[in-house]
Amino acid sequence: MSDILDQLATVLEQRRHADPEASYVASLHHKGLNKILEKLGEEATETLLAAKDAAQGDEPERQAVVAETADLWFHSLVMLSHLGIDHQAVLDELARRFGISGLDEKAARPSE
Amino acid sequence: MSDILDQLATVLEQRRHADPEASYVASLHHKGLNKILEKLGEEATETLLAAKDAAQGDEPERQAVVAETADLWFHSLVMLSHLGIDHQAVLDELARRFGISGLDEKAARPSE
Amino acid sequence: MSDILDQLATVLEQRRHADPEASYVASLHHKGLNKILEKLGEEATETLLAAKDAAQGDEPERQAVVAETADLWFHSLVMLSHLGIDHQAVLDELARRFGISGLDEKAARPSE
Amino acid sequence: MSDILDQLATVLEQRRHADPEASYVASLHHKGLNKILEKLGEEATETLLAAKDAAQGDEPERQAVVAETADLWFHSLVMLSHLGIDHQAVLDELARRFGISGLDEKAARPSE
Repeated sequence: MSDILDQLATVLEQRRHADPEASYVASLHHKGLNKILEKLGEEATETLLAAKDAAQGDEPERQAVVAETADLWFHSLVMLSHLGIDHQAVLDELARRFGISGLDEKAARPSE
Repeated sequence: MSDILDQLATVLEQRRHADPEASYVASLHHKGLNKILEKLGEEATETLLAAKDAAQGDEPERQAVVAETADLWFHSLVMLSHLGIDHQAVLDELARRFGISGLDEKAARPSE
Repeated sequence: MSDILDQLATVLEQRRHADPEASYVASLHHKGLNKILEKLGEEATETLLAAKDAAQGDEPERQAVVAETADLWFHSLVMLSHLGIDHQAVLDELARRFGISGLDEKAARPSE
Repeated sequence: MSDILDQLATVLEQRRHADPEASYVASLHHKGLNKILEKLGEEATETLLAAKDAAQGDEPERQAVVAETADLWFHSLVMLSHLGIDHQAVLDELARRFGISGLDEKAARPSE
C-alpha cells in the first residue's frame, strides 16, 4: 500500500479512461498498443545512451539515467495496464525468482 | 523496506561481488556495462514481441509478457547498480512526477 | 545485378530452404519470425553501443561499428525474405525519397 | 556506380554540411550522435512492430515494413557518415562473409 509502484499503477488505471486531450496516459491508450510499444522502445534506447554517457560522465549524466529509467518503467506500466496485466504479477515473478517473500506472505505469518 | 524492488535491489547488491562463476548477477558486472546494456536491449525487444503476441493471444502469451517485463526490470536494476545509482532515485522521480507521496514523506509527518 | 546487396539477397534466398543444421540462415527461418526479430533488435542495440564506443575510440571500435552494421543489415534482409518482401522495394523507396534514379529507370530510357 | 546505396551515400555526404534548417540530414548531424542513434533505435522498434503486423496483415502492412526498413537503413547510413565510416566497408564485410565478389574485384579481373 505504501509502495510507489503500487500507487503509480493505481493512478495509471484511473487516468486510462480520462480525456485523451487532457491526459498523456489516456492519449497513449487511445493511440493503441503500437504507440505504447514505440515509446517503450524509444525509452529503452534513450536509457542505453544515457548509461553510456554516465559511464564517462558526471552528475548530470547520472540524473539523465534516472530520468530515462523512470520513463522506461512508466511506459512498461502503461503497457501492462493496456494489456490488462497487473504489475504485481511482474513483482511476484521477480520475488519468486530471487526467493524474496512479499508483503502478503508476511501478512500471513502467525502473529507470534 | 517490505517492498519487493527494495529487497531485490539489496539481493543484487550482495551478489554484485560474488563469484562470477556462481552468480549470473556477478557475471554481468564482471563482463561490464556493454554486456548489461546488450541484455537490457534484448529484453526490451523480447517484451515488445511478447506484447504483440499477447494482443492476439491467450494466457501463455500473457505469462510471457510478465516474464519478459520481469527480465527488463531486473536488468534495469543491474544497470543502476553497476553505475552506482540507487533504484530509489528512479522511484522518487516517478513519485515526484505523479504527485505520489512516498514512504519517507510519510515517516517525516508530524506524529500528531 | 552486380550489386553486393542483390547478390547477398540471392544467396539468402537459396539458403532459406537449406538444412537448418547446416545453415544459420535456414535455422533462423526455421525458428520463425520472432527469433529473426529478436536478432534484429539485438543487432540494433549492439550497433548503438559500438557507435558510442567509436565516438570515443579508435580503429578497433570503428571496425566494430562496421561489423555490427553488417549484422543489422544482414538480419533486415533475412526478415524481408521471411516475409516474402523483395529487398529491392526498400532500395526503390530510398531512391524515390531522394530523387535517385535506379537501374530500372535507366533501362526504361528511350535508347536514342 | 549505378547502385542506389552508393548514390544515396553521395547525397547524404553532400547534405551533411547543408543548412540544418533546410535539410533533415544536416539537422541530424547538427544535433549529434545521440540524436542519430535515438532515431536508429526508434526505426528498429518500428520495423519490428511493422513486421509483426505484416505477419498477420495484408498489403498495407507489407508496405509499412518497406517504409520502416528504408528508415532503418537510411539512419544507419547517416550514422556511418557521422562517424566518418564509408558504407562500402559494411558492404565489403557482407561480401567477405558470404564469399561474394564485389564490383571492384570484377573490374580488376584480366579481360581474357
